[in-house]
Amino acid sequence: MSPLGGGSLLLAWQLKGKHVLIVGGGDVASGRIESVLAADAHVTLITPSNGLHPLTKCFLDGPYNITYHDRLFGGVQDLANVDLVLTAIDDVVQSRVICSLCRELKIPVNVADIPESCDFYFGSQIRDGPLQIMISTNGNSPKLANIIRRKIEQNLPEHAGDAIIRVGELRTKLKERAPGVGGEIGKRRMRWMIDVCTSWEMEELALLDDQMIRKLLDDGWEKNAVPSPAEVGARSCQTYSATPNVAVPGVPVTMLSFVAGAACASLFLLARRR
Amino acid sequence: MSPLGGGSLLLAWQLKGKHVLIVGGGDVASGRIESVLAADAHVTLITPSNGLHPLTKCFLDGPYNITYHDRLFGGVQDLANVDLVLTAIDDVVQSRVICSLCRELKIPVNVADIPESCDFYFGSQIRDGPLQIMISTNGNSPKLANIIRRKIEQNLPEHAGDAIIRVGELRTKLKERAPGVGGEIGKRRMRWMIDVCTSWEMEELALLDDQMIRKLLDDGWEKNAVPSPAEVGARSCQTYSATPNVAVPGVPVTMLSFVAGAACASLFLLARRR
Repeated sequence: MSPLGGGSLLLAWQLKGKHVLIVGGGDVASGRIESVLAADAHVTLITPSNGLHPLTKCFLDGPYNITYHDRLFGGVQDLANVDLVLTAIDDVVQSRVICSLCRELKIPVNVADIPESCDFYFGSQIRDGPLQIMISTNGNSPKLANIIRRKIEQNLPEHAGDAIIRVGELRTKLKERAPGVGGEIGKRRMRWMIDVCTSWEMEELALLDDQMIRKLLDDGWEKNAVPSPAEVGARSCQTYSATPNVAVPGVPVTMLSFVAGAACASLFLLARRR
Repeated sequence: MSPLGGGSLLLAWQLKGKHVLIVGGGDVASGRIESVLAADAHVTLITPSNGLHPLTKCFLDGPYNITYHDRLFGGVQDLANVDLVLTAIDDVVQSRVICSLCRELKIPVNVADIPESCDFYFGSQIRDGPLQIMISTNGNSPKLANIIRRKIEQNLPEHAGDAIIRVGELRTKLKERAPGVGGEIGKRRMRWMIDVCTSWEMEELALLDDQMIRKLLDDGWEKNAVPSPAEVGARSCQTYSATPNVAVPGVPVTMLSFVAGAACASLFLLARRR
């Protein structure tokens, strides 16, 4: 294990247009269905209808992209064209069989309750539109993950999801106006977007509409400035508190910490040398 | 897209004993190396040494599980026995070639800056021992992900990482005392663990030592009760205040960067001393 080790690689897996097989229809399976539908997957559900959780039934009855087979897992043919497999059944032997087949076919698999049969784990999650947050305790305590999730939820900036949507739109429009991948233009775009995001409060960013975005690009981007929300016509004023921004723009905190660490160690070693 | 859709599937990918190939050695690549080392992967790094970022150099010089090849990506033979591929190079054509090879071989791949060549994305991350948190804006705004990460970091319960380690130990000892997978005993264990986690504050859980754990199991689990921290011999009482938490928690990424910076400078200075 490396000095950094002991953790997982946290990822945002992309499932748009991908096929996910879920085996099982109980409580855990219903949560899995919700998670993969959130990522726009095509879901195939294999489980006898006599064990369906109410929420699973609800997903089957709803306007969702689910193909349902009312039966037990039937073997390797059920894995044809499948990109990801999640099982949540009580039959440990069958679970291990499915896992082995997936490993042979190089299909990522998660077997509920059998950690060694999992290529990946799930965590406690928060969703606010395009904002997704996962809390993992690396299997140590699902309950504490849950408690931490609730604390984070309570302290999340209001309108964070809306702000992210609007900033995403601003970014898209900026790329249309000043196109090009990488290089100087890419760097200038990134710097300006960072300036906007650090000068405006989250609630202010959430107010951005098409007209304000146009004005922000005309009066801001074109003139290499960041107008205030009021200057681009934000309607509500009570939210614009002018708290000073203590972050150093453009320099990631990790870099500052790296430099600080290097400086500390150098001073220590140089002092000892004398 | 389903009514829930538009998101990703957030996962904690398991890399212990797995082989990860990283192509590129710059700023982004150094972050990737840190992320996969945190998950105990065997890393193979392929990149010419003339473009190495200081942090990448630091990882190569440090006590890490990295095999380094000072050259460009050489083709499909570089993908033998590889479980995951991350590329962070400026050559878009080469990036796409690597992506195609990975897709043919069914190796999950992330190509920095080319979303359509990614099976998964990274997010802004927090680490405190076994606690890992990822913030994803689904590609809409890396800067807002960063701002939200910092807010979460500031509001995280103090000693969350320690509490998770201790509760993990309590859980392991409980399973030794009352073994069995699933069924009634599994449910009783889960209920009792939830009771402990909700009755004790995070800072109190962080105080649990071997003796307290034994007493908690003797006087708590065996009698189907949850003793208070004082009842199982928690020494310090002043930490049990419910004061709001202003401190930055245990080991965030900034701390890791600080340590990396210190390590690099030390290695550099010690090397020059000889």
